[in-house]
Amino acid sequence: MNAGNKIAVFRKEHFNAAHRLFNPSWDDQRNEAVFGKCNNPNYHGHNYELMVKLTGEPDPETGFVMDLKVLSDIIKEHVVERFDHKNLNLDIPYFKDLNPTAENICMVIYTILREKIDLRFGIQVRLYETERNFVEYPVDIN
Amino acid sequence: MNAGNKIAVFRKEHFNAAHRLFNPSWDDQRNEAVFGKCNNPNYHGHNYELMVKLTGEPDPETGFVMDLKVLSDIIKEHVVERFDHKNLNLDIPYFKDLNPTAENICMVIYTILREKIDLRFGIQVRLYETERNFVEYPVDIN
Amino acid sequence: MNAGNKIAVFRKEHFNAAHRLFNPSWDDQRNEAVFGKCNNPNYHGHNYELMVKLTGEPDPETGFVMDLKVLSDIIKEHVVERFDHKNLNLDIPYFKDLNPTAENICMVIYTILREKIDLRFGIQVRLYETERNFVEYPVDIN
Amino acid sequence: MNAGNKIAVFRKEHFNAAHRLFNPSWDDQRNEAVFGKCNNPNYHGHNYELMVKLTGEPDPETGFVMDLKVLSDIIKEHVVERFDHKNLNLDIPYFKDLNPTAENICMVIYTILREKIDLRFGIQVRLYETERNFVEYPVDIN
Amino acid sequence: MNAGNKIAVFRKEHFNAAHRLFNPSWDDQRNEAVFGKCNNPNYHGHNYELMVKLTGEPDPETGFVMDLKVLSDIIKEHVVERFDHKNLNLDIPYFKDLNPTAENICMVIYTILREKIDLRFGIQVRLYETERNFVEYPVDIN
Amino acid sequence: MNAGNKIAVFRKEHFNAAHRLFNPSWDDQRNEAVFGKCNNPNYHGHNYELMVKLTGEPDPETGFVMDLKVLSDIIKEHVVERFDHKNLNLDIPYFKDLNPTAENICMVIYTILREKIDLRFGIQVRLYETERNFVEYPVDIN
Repeated sequence: MNAGNKIAVFRKEHFNAAHRLFNPSWDDQRNEAVFGKCNNPNYHGHNYELMVKLTGEPDPETGFVMDLKVLSDIIKEHVVERFDHKNLNLDIPYFKDLNPTAENICMVIYTILREKIDLRFGIQVRLYETERNFVEYPVDIN
Repeated sequence: MNAGNKIAVFRKEHFNAAHRLFNPSWDDQRNEAVFGKCNNPNYHGHNYELMVKLTGEPDPETGFVMDLKVLSDIIKEHVVERFDHKNLNLDIPYFKDLNPTAENICMVIYTILREKIDLRFGIQVRLYETERNFVEYPVDIN
Repeated sequence: MNAGNKIAVFRKEHFNAAHRLFNPSWDDQRNEAVFGKCNNPNYHGHNYELMVKLTGEPDPETGFVMDLKVLSDIIKEHVVERFDHKNLNLDIPYFKDLNPTAENICMVIYTILREKIDLRFGIQVRLYETERNFVEYPVDIN
Repeated sequence: MNAGNKIAVFRKEHFNAAHRLFNPSWDDQRNEAVFGKCNNPNYHGHNYELMVKLTGEPDPETGFVMDLKVLSDIIKEHVVERFDHKNLNLDIPYFKDLNPTAENICMVIYTILREKIDLRFGIQVRLYETERNFVEYPVDIN
Repeated sequence: MNAGNKIAVFRKEHFNAAHRLFNPSWDDQRNEAVFGKCNNPNYHGHNYELMVKLTGEPDPETGFVMDLKVLSDIIKEHVVERFDHKNLNLDIPYFKDLNPTAENICMVIYTILREKIDLRFGIQVRLYETERNFVEYPVDIN
Repeated sequence: MNAGNKIAVFRKEHFNAAHRLFNPSWDDQRNEAVFGKCNNPNYHGHNYELMVKLTGEPDPETGFVMDLKVLSDIIKEHVVERFDHKNLNLDIPYFKDLNPTAENICMVIYTILREKIDLRFGIQVRLYETERNFVEYPVDIN
């Protein structure tokens, strides 16, 4: 197998969710100082754009690394169905004790997908909270 | 004054908010049937993009219909500051008894801005709830 | 009923299709002169973006003019399912004797949707053939 | 001829230019107060996006209102070639005594194109100075 | 030469083409099962966006790694002119026996460009089949 | 500290500026031959989009690598305030003897930000001169 034949494929999906940023071990004043308006106890929300990068070698019979329809279905079943139109703090157990910053949401999504995608594929997750604020995990993709 | 010199100017702003769609006079079953996942009692959210169109004649001394910096400041002061990082149902009195659909949010924003902008200018508000779902009010701009 | 309460709602969908521009009553030379590379007899293709505007009054019980999920379903059932991943010239009977220019595709889509959407709603169709070339029908929406 | 067959076609082009906003009959202080940082005497610049809308009836032989390649060539020859990579204040005679606000640039482009495009077609020009600031002339298209 | 001075420059181009996905050594049923609607024997099509990344050191006299006008001309001459408004399966010899998936098209474009661009520059090709499906080759750029 | 926990965060900002490309040690003819219309002595301009990538480990108490509001403020204070609505050649000392190509502007911005951001964070700067022409420095982020 020749590493030089590796190619990356990307699929974008999206979900809309509410969240609130705060650290339950801090008092209100410190939460307000650090998280500002993101700390609104009544929540606010975002249209999250999710971009999943997957690396591997194209199958010589299909020309696909992975059919992007299949990748889309995996993302939809395990991420979008769980997160879309939800309150991340209240409805998603991962964020019961974890602040739903873009960084933490991205790492949770990576963890979810890493378990569902064969290890011969490298994966990387980019999550847009807004068009101007986004994050990517991991930094390197293997 | 010659109507033929009228020109339209546009300014886009954005805000991020949580909301929930439901009709309090209906039971849960009917709310679920009509509003589906938008009815999540824990709320979900969006990055709202707001585009305000204003029509009028350019001032011959400045070449501006209205300095878009001024229009931006009006929108920010009266809409964005009030709506951004808020829960529309809980934090915004307009939606105490009004379902915060894109249609109703757009008409509320129009009402707010119409009071703050001189009547010699026509205005129209377009509100994007997502890139693929948006609304515009009024249908005609006078 | 007060016309001043009319609001416009928009839904975007997309489909990918092949087409070829030519006039069967012309010879090859004239088709080549008029349609240039769009006349390739082996076809070329586009990602078409379709934006449907619908005008009406919000229902006071729901706050919707029409649930955009419903509008999306109508567009998907009657347009996207028929046009997506198709060869417009060969697979779509409307274009058996009609050149599939953006103008003609847009007017056909309008005709299809006008029959499926209640006449109390005005509709207008915008079709993007590329990001820089697009069309809209009708010019005025009633 | 049936007005109901009118359809609109759009073509987007772009140009990059420098400009400065000021009124030569005002003193520096007033120019600074009104135009702020846009009054920098050394100029600043923009990537202008230009969208031309043209209305008319499709030609039954071609299915085109106007071949968008032809419309693109008209815009490039008469607007883009003259404005691109230019200093609007210094290089474009139209702005010798006219402040190059988005409004005035848009109206000048309309005037240029109106002379080059057959009067049986309606035209309207939208000019984006930035993604968030743009203008459109005329308000109604005939 | 100091690797720390390397910088990446990018140029985006686009082409519109028709294609069909299938494996000629399979029967219709298996092609249908694997490629679904992408297997339409009458073809479908896309607006392909092509982004070429080139790495190298800026020339101290010009400040350019490579004039992006030059890079654009190379891409246009060797890729866009050959692929635009074509049927990839029928008109492009590379795909006579190679399934024109996004992966294979991307690798072919890389091969074409790698022969035309000096080896002191690293290159990487990203190809968007739709806004939500895209690929990149090679995974690492040297 | 576990490198595997590193994540990248991104913030986009923008500024509008004028510039001219030329090499003062060359005569007009050579500058014209190399820089073409970018050499206009009266300047032209762009809407520059600036994307800053920062890598590091999320703070376990906040879930942030760096609050993107803080990163935004650093970029605005040290880059946008200095470059926005300016003539890069005349108003920005860095370009007194350095040709303001996208490559050089990007490397200058990197240098400015690298001094203001703690060295435990890796940074990389992407600068869009237009939607189709952009650059990124450094090639690798540590």
